[in-house]
Amino acid sequence: MAMNGAESLIRTLVAGGVDTCFTNPGTSEMHVVAALDGATEMRCVLGLFEGVVTGAADGYARMTGKPACSLLHLGPGLANGTANLHNASKAHTPIISLIGQHPAHHLEYDAPLTSDIEAIARPYSHWLRTSRAASEIGRDAADAIVAAGNEPGQIATLIVPADVAWSDGGSVAAKPAVPKAPLPPHENVERAAALLRSGARTAMMITGSALHGEGLKAAGQIASATGAKLFAPYSLPRMERGAGRVPVQRLPYVPDQAIETLKEFRQLILVGAPIPVSYFAYPTKSSVLSPPDGVMHALASPTEDSAGALEALASALSLNDKSEVLTQAAERPAAPTGEITLAGLATTVAALLPENCIVVDEAMTSGRGMMAASRGVAPHDWLGNTGGSIGIALPLAVGAAVAAPDRRVLCLTADGSSMYTLQAWWTMAREGLNVTTVVFANRAYAVLQWEYSGLGVGAPGPRAADLFHIGRPDIDWVMMAKSMGVPAARANSLESFGDLLRKGFAGEGPSLIEISL
Amino acid sequence: MAMNGAESLIRTLVAGGVDTCFTNPGTSEMHVVAALDGATEMRCVLGLFEGVVTGAADGYARMTGKPACSLLHLGPGLANGTANLHNASKAHTPIISLIGQHPAHHLEYDAPLTSDIEAIARPYSHWLRTSRAASEIGRDAADAIVAAGNEPGQIATLIVPADVAWSDGGSVAAKPAVPKAPLPPHENVERAAALLRSGARTAMMITGSALHGEGLKAAGQIASATGAKLFAPYSLPRMERGAGRVPVQRLPYVPDQAIETLKEFRQLILVGAPIPVSYFAYPTKSSVLSPPDGVMHALASPTEDSAGALEALASALSLNDKSEVLTQAAERPAAPTGEITLAGLATTVAALLPENCIVVDEAMTSGRGMMAASRGVAPHDWLGNTGGSIGIALPLAVGAAVAAPDRRVLCLTADGSSMYTLQAWWTMAREGLNVTTVVFANRAYAVLQWEYSGLGVGAPGPRAADLFHIGRPDIDWVMMAKSMGVPAARANSLESFGDLLRKGFAGEGPSLIEISL
Repeated sequence: MAMNGAESLIRTLVAGGVDTCFTNPGTSEMHVVAALDGATEMRCVLGLFEGVVTGAADGYARMTGKPACSLLHLGPGLANGTANLHNASKAHTPIISLIGQHPAHHLEYDAPLTSDIEAIARPYSHWLRTSRAASEIGRDAADAIVAAGNEPGQIATLIVPADVAWSDGGSVAAKPAVPKAPLPPHENVERAAALLRSGARTAMMITGSALHGEGLKAAGQIASATGAKLFAPYSLPRMERGAGRVPVQRLPYVPDQAIETLKEFRQLILVGAPIPVSYFAYPTKSSVLSPPDGVMHALASPTEDSAGALEALASALSLNDKSEVLTQAAERPAAPTGEITLAGLATTVAALLPENCIVVDEAMTSGRGMMAASRGVAPHDWLGNTGGSIGIALPLAVGAAVAAPDRRVLCLTADGSSMYTLQAWWTMAREGLNVTTVVFANRAYAVLQWEYSGLGVGAPGPRAADLFHIGRPDIDWVMMAKSMGVPAARANSLESFGDLLRKGFAGEGPSLIEISL
Repeated sequence: MAMNGAESLIRTLVAGGVDTCFTNPGTSEMHVVAALDGATEMRCVLGLFEGVVTGAADGYARMTGKPACSLLHLGPGLANGTANLHNASKAHTPIISLIGQHPAHHLEYDAPLTSDIEAIARPYSHWLRTSRAASEIGRDAADAIVAAGNEPGQIATLIVPADVAWSDGGSVAAKPAVPKAPLPPHENVERAAALLRSGARTAMMITGSALHGEGLKAAGQIASATGAKLFAPYSLPRMERGAGRVPVQRLPYVPDQAIETLKEFRQLILVGAPIPVSYFAYPTKSSVLSPPDGVMHALASPTEDSAGALEALASALSLNDKSEVLTQAAERPAAPTGEITLAGLATTVAALLPENCIVVDEAMTSGRGMMAASRGVAPHDWLGNTGGSIGIALPLAVGAAVAAPDRRVLCLTADGSSMYTLQAWWTMAREGLNVTTVVFANRAYAVLQWEYSGLGVGAPGPRAADLFHIGRPDIDWVMMAKSMGVPAARANSLESFGDLLRKGFAGEGPSLIEISL
């Protein structure tokens, strides 16, 4: 049947298994919106700011393993979404990023919204194409599916000129086969096996597909058989954890703590993980966190099949399906009472976390004790900030909740990071997403207060201190959430925090708890 | 005296007349923050999202004619600010954009926040440099002042590696001379004079420096002497208007209205303005809004001296200082009463607008009648969205209020656009800025509903309609503003709107009025 370019684009995506579109469209994308209107297989989720859209696409793909598409308005719409594309790129998340563009005959006039979209998209795109004709855009969409799905996941940007969308002559391209990530060379596996057999104290730093499912199981077998200790980078995309799961320790954010954690290990095997380095450079410190005189070996690079590499390594170590897997013992603390303390909050979360919960974590200063406290509670997933661009937690929670409607999402965030993409609460309310947000309101960029003192520039003077202090005026998070339709309350004791958390986990739709610190 | 790179950077900026820094810094910028701490001549204004920071720098420069500096955190911080840099770029606003970067020895490890900052900045930078050494950054800052000030104003991006900032060896560079914009060739002036003398009905489309001060006066003399009609593009950066000022008509946003407005003119003289085109392309319409068979002549290009060109044209037409200037008669309506209507709201604003007010206008659908109603009221400035990236109004208002603390700012915005950069309200509250915001809450991307129907794709189906409707849930703007410390109320009649407007203009600090449409 006859169809225009926009229709062939959307139908090709649907045929290729892409069933969710996070969007904030504009005039140039109206024909694509019309095509979405006719494609009921594709769920459309509106965000009122593009950082919400791209971050939600990231969260969706982290939980489903397949790309959502995002649809944004011209260069400025893309620009607003790029910070969370940075995070998605570091997470190796598959996303099909659709951006409208003026037709060539309009571009020449430099109308207000004209910009070089390819240049804006390039730093965040592993694959980038501007579609040239309605007859080609079906094929372009199929290529984008392949590019995004190229394991471990990439950002594929397809720019859609309005005239390509509105012109007739579109055709649906067949569902493409997406290549799997390659296994690393066998020498890498042999070398890792030899290191593990040597008896020297060994750490394995694993990430990506090795932090859940079969890859994680193989890691647990290797750890059990060899005594190797399993770590994940601080910037982890998604980790399965809890009672009965393979215990993996997240490297601390604070460099001195990370160095202390790693110093006993003479050997470090990297599995899809980069060399462990500090977030930032400091005048008198090394960037690398592992011992300088240790042995470092990359079993799998970030673009190789980490899970497959671990299974190959298990085989090389003569392990099989029946080999013992290192698992975390169940330990669930009781909910504490009394005044609010960070430790008490962490214990409360651990006491009440529902089974199969998805925890999104961007409480960089106040949430540091959360993982230790919850290691033995019911199995759950943990999602982190992979690129350090703050403002990912709320959008990630949106995407995770859309991806897994039968699961609860707990979003741990702070006042500094929440302000970046607070529009996400509106989408949670609109879509009735089961997300319970906890805002740790310390009225400060506390991480900056801490970093400043660590950089050897002395104590902050009044003007510097003012730039780290976001409590003038205090933001009322309860009022803020309610203004966007999210029920909210303030916890003033550990009991009330526990009560609100229980209520949030039991209720329908989103809720918010403000913790004033 | 001995100083580090950061200190020489800030001291060079201060010496060059840059006295305001809008910022959201991070760890990599801590030495620059320390230098700001010691430079009391530089006012620092914190924004809790970078789009607020860059938009405020735009508003500041539109009102002062000189650049502020902005200081942002690495690639992601810049990324969040780029949409409003797009607008600033289209406004030809001078901005000195400072971005931190990791030292080279840290970049090689691809830490989470690593990105290609030059690539991210390039689409928004007329001048772009990464500083190489503490001994050079003073000179770099002086070059940035020249590049930004290069009339009619540009974005100069200086990337500051942390080790350049923290290393010793900085020195303050002398205050540079900033070149003026060149006059257009004299033939351009002669040709414009000949067209005006021909007697054919002539429109002059003026913008930039020709919309205020001496340039506008010359335009008013030319209009008075020749009968030419003065227009400004819809996307105008700043226009002086009101009683006793030269009347300039803003071209309507709606293409058919703009075509209708221009159709009587056989000649169009462009003064710093681009060819008038529609925002968007449509399948069956031309992009150009002026009559296809008319004569078009560019007196001055956007990078030439528009004001000077008009003065030269006035001379060529034998006008002098004493020649009559076309001026707007005073006409101030009475404040109306009754139910809320768009016309009634516009009349109320006109009735109450304080003298010397700065009006920031991003109410694309609901605010269309505002300019006509207020043309004869007390003199004021009008600031528009120049690049079509929504979310500029609130940040512009912040910057304008910082630039002109003795003037009142009225910010006309809508629910769709306000959601983009709502963090600006917090900065207004913190700095006690005299900004009265009016939010026209029509619970829709109304412009998209309208554009959809104009694109020939039929009536929106339920899924498309849902993407244009932002009233599920309704956003409570009063609660939202109060959550960030801004007093707010809802107007439910023209009387209550008038009362709230009076109260806002009379009070200290920011206020917000929600209009439910």
